[in-house]
Amino acid sequence: MALIVQKYGGTSVGSVERIKNVAQRVAKWKAAGHDVVVVVSAMSGETNRLIGLAKDIQAQPDPRELDQIAATGEQVTIGLTAMALQAIGVPAVSYTGGQVRILTDSAYTKARIISIDEDKIRADLNAGRVVIVAGFQGVDEHGTLTTLGRGGSDTTGVALAAALKADECQIYTDVDGVYTTDPRIVPSARRLKTITFEEMLEMASLGSKVLQIRSVEFAGKYKVRLRVLSSLTDPLLPVAQESVSGTLITFEEDPNMAMEQAVISGVAFARDEAKITVHDVPDRPGIAYAILGPIADANIDVDVIVQNVGHDGMTDLSFTVARGDLSKALKILKDQVQPHIKCREVTGDDHIAKVSLVGLGMRSHVGIASQMFRTLAEEGINIQMITTSEIKISVVMDEKYLELAVRVLHKAFGLDQA
Amino acid sequence: MALIVQKYGGTSVGSVERIKNVAQRVAKWKAAGHDVVVVVSAMSGETNRLIGLAKDIQAQPDPRELDQIAATGEQVTIGLTAMALQAIGVPAVSYTGGQVRILTDSAYTKARIISIDEDKIRADLNAGRVVIVAGFQGVDEHGTLTTLGRGGSDTTGVALAAALKADECQIYTDVDGVYTTDPRIVPSARRLKTITFEEMLEMASLGSKVLQIRSVEFAGKYKVRLRVLSSLTDPLLPVAQESVSGTLITFEEDPNMAMEQAVISGVAFARDEAKITVHDVPDRPGIAYAILGPIADANIDVDVIVQNVGHDGMTDLSFTVARGDLSKALKILKDQVQPHIKCREVTGDDHIAKVSLVGLGMRSHVGIASQMFRTLAEEGINIQMITTSEIKISVVMDEKYLELAVRVLHKAFGLDQA
Repeated sequence: MALIVQKYGGTSVGSVERIKNVAQRVAKWKAAGHDVVVVVSAMSGETNRLIGLAKDIQAQPDPRELDQIAATGEQVTIGLTAMALQAIGVPAVSYTGGQVRILTDSAYTKARIISIDEDKIRADLNAGRVVIVAGFQGVDEHGTLTTLGRGGSDTTGVALAAALKADECQIYTDVDGVYTTDPRIVPSARRLKTITFEEMLEMASLGSKVLQIRSVEFAGKYKVRLRVLSSLTDPLLPVAQESVSGTLITFEEDPNMAMEQAVISGVAFARDEAKITVHDVPDRPGIAYAILGPIADANIDVDVIVQNVGHDGMTDLSFTVARGDLSKALKILKDQVQPHIKCREVTGDDHIAKVSLVGLGMRSHVGIASQMFRTLAEEGINIQMITTSEIKISVVMDEKYLELAVRVLHKAFGLDQA
Repeated sequence: MALIVQKYGGTSVGSVERIKNVAQRVAKWKAAGHDVVVVVSAMSGETNRLIGLAKDIQAQPDPRELDQIAATGEQVTIGLTAMALQAIGVPAVSYTGGQVRILTDSAYTKARIISIDEDKIRADLNAGRVVIVAGFQGVDEHGTLTTLGRGGSDTTGVALAAALKADECQIYTDVDGVYTTDPRIVPSARRLKTITFEEMLEMASLGSKVLQIRSVEFAGKYKVRLRVLSSLTDPLLPVAQESVSGTLITFEEDPNMAMEQAVISGVAFARDEAKITVHDVPDRPGIAYAILGPIADANIDVDVIVQNVGHDGMTDLSFTVARGDLSKALKILKDQVQPHIKCREVTGDDHIAKVSLVGLGMRSHVGIASQMFRTLAEEGINIQMITTSEIKISVVMDEKYLELAVRVLHKAFGLDQA
């Protein structure tokens, strides 16, 4: 008998019928002898409806009041899910984030979980009940409602699994796992049976939007065994079969996993970034801060940053930002930065894409980078920027090459073979 | 400077525009120097939508889970109302029932308020904020959400006014006060400027559905000054004018009120009842209990009960029930009661109406009943049952006479004259 936390997203609970499906699935796990805690999101579309109402009233909704409103979406789903279980004879009880005291800081709309009081949940589990908890929400020390930001229900699931020391946290979603790359671009992309936390972090932040990145960090920190699997399969699929489906996110430390580890796990990509280059800046200490400080002050996230060795006392600094922030960032640079640092020119390019190879195995394999660059060169793809980490190599290129680059890299590193 | 509690019902907050109107009205009272606490219901239709979802999942929804779901309606409105105030520059903060610890018993879907923690509210008022509280809901001692039943937002308003010792509790609704009778039946019906609590109780329970009866009882118990007024007037109507509009519900003890008190305050009526008569039952102790006990056990509410003096050791007992309960009540009487008490016959009639004269003044005026009966007789209206209390006379008649009876009584007692 295991303790399982299952999280179902908005699409999985998007209608009365789907909620009944969730109940069937949960009942099956319960019938197999497991204790089950279920975390649910708002029914799909509901959070947007609520935020829309708020914006009709106040163009920039007050964050505290917005959380008060937005948290109701999950509260409706927990009640309906508990009812759906009761309707098929499974004892169940629902709790809002506040009712199991998911204590957070007071950063409305993007709060962080501090602690969870698991006593109530344990008592219900011991009494044979399935416990349904609202995702995405908590309360601060004053009892004020908070929400964890978009996708926060994943984080709730992982945090509950950590607090309860659950055997596994299962994230049910509308895809059946993590793939070597996007199957819409490479039809031969394979589902990964396992992926390490570190790889998953790189995959998630690079655009394979299966799991909210914070929940993966959380799972890594508390060593929560995390599985991504599909809620669209037959809810009565045998437990023995379902329990090995999807993708298991593992700890690198697991020696069995390390043995089987492929060199490269996947090809990730992002096409929502733009590149900014500050040309011919004086190559002296503090120049990167002089350029990127005002950008950070304006709450603009910077992703890739590249500064090459200088020549003649001058250098270029390039970085990428979200495409929607490009014009704002350029304005800051031209108005506030350029007059001070006396660079030659600031240019922006919003027709770029970032393609990344991710794989724990590259740490112990030489020649991955050169094989990547050769593969791209053979297709005539020009590389504009390169960054590397221990388990990732990212290149920035003209966005017109994105699909081609993903396909040839996927093939070159043997990702389409099981 | 006064402390005012204002309650707005579902119609008054039924759209973004109406919520903005509420904000205008509240801002006006605040600008006039008053502290304002606002209680709001769910946007009209929302509670029914939520209950509909629940019933799609579970034919008889679990009461605890139903409350968990239903309470979200008000939670959305409080956030939107706070935002609407902030949007016009009025500091405002919202609280759910649980957040200001409106402590109730655990009778889900019909909980009773035990206490309210007013500290948070006072602190906000002292800081110059308008406080918005969700109506209809509370929490029990375990922190589980409860709701107060339909119309419970009125009760929340009155309970808050009592806890805060507010100067007045204003119930904004879609009528502009309590009338001498239904203006749809008698166009000359007048709005009452004042009505006593006792009269209001009789009017409310008899079908003038302006206020939830529990809230009136609550107001009476804690001596809360209660005013019913319209939310459909211009929200910028001067405070001096609005503060004397609607109908003020007063304490009988107020000597000034007693002086002005008319003999009769209004004509109330109900057409949703049915009459049951048990014919020729033995006229002996315990017979009323033998008949009405099984009815009460089946959770059927009984309204008027009449038993006349017997003859030849036999009597008839008549009573009224809600029309929807008639067939159930008849079945109980025929199956469970008739075999034991050996009455001759049990009959039911669902074509009746009840018309009532209500007035504190009738206590000190003789001849009201006879004037009522004469008035009805002159129109050829046969009276089937009569009951009286200190401030009310009710008669049951064929429902086809309802409108006629209300009109002639309204005129006979001078209610159309100011």
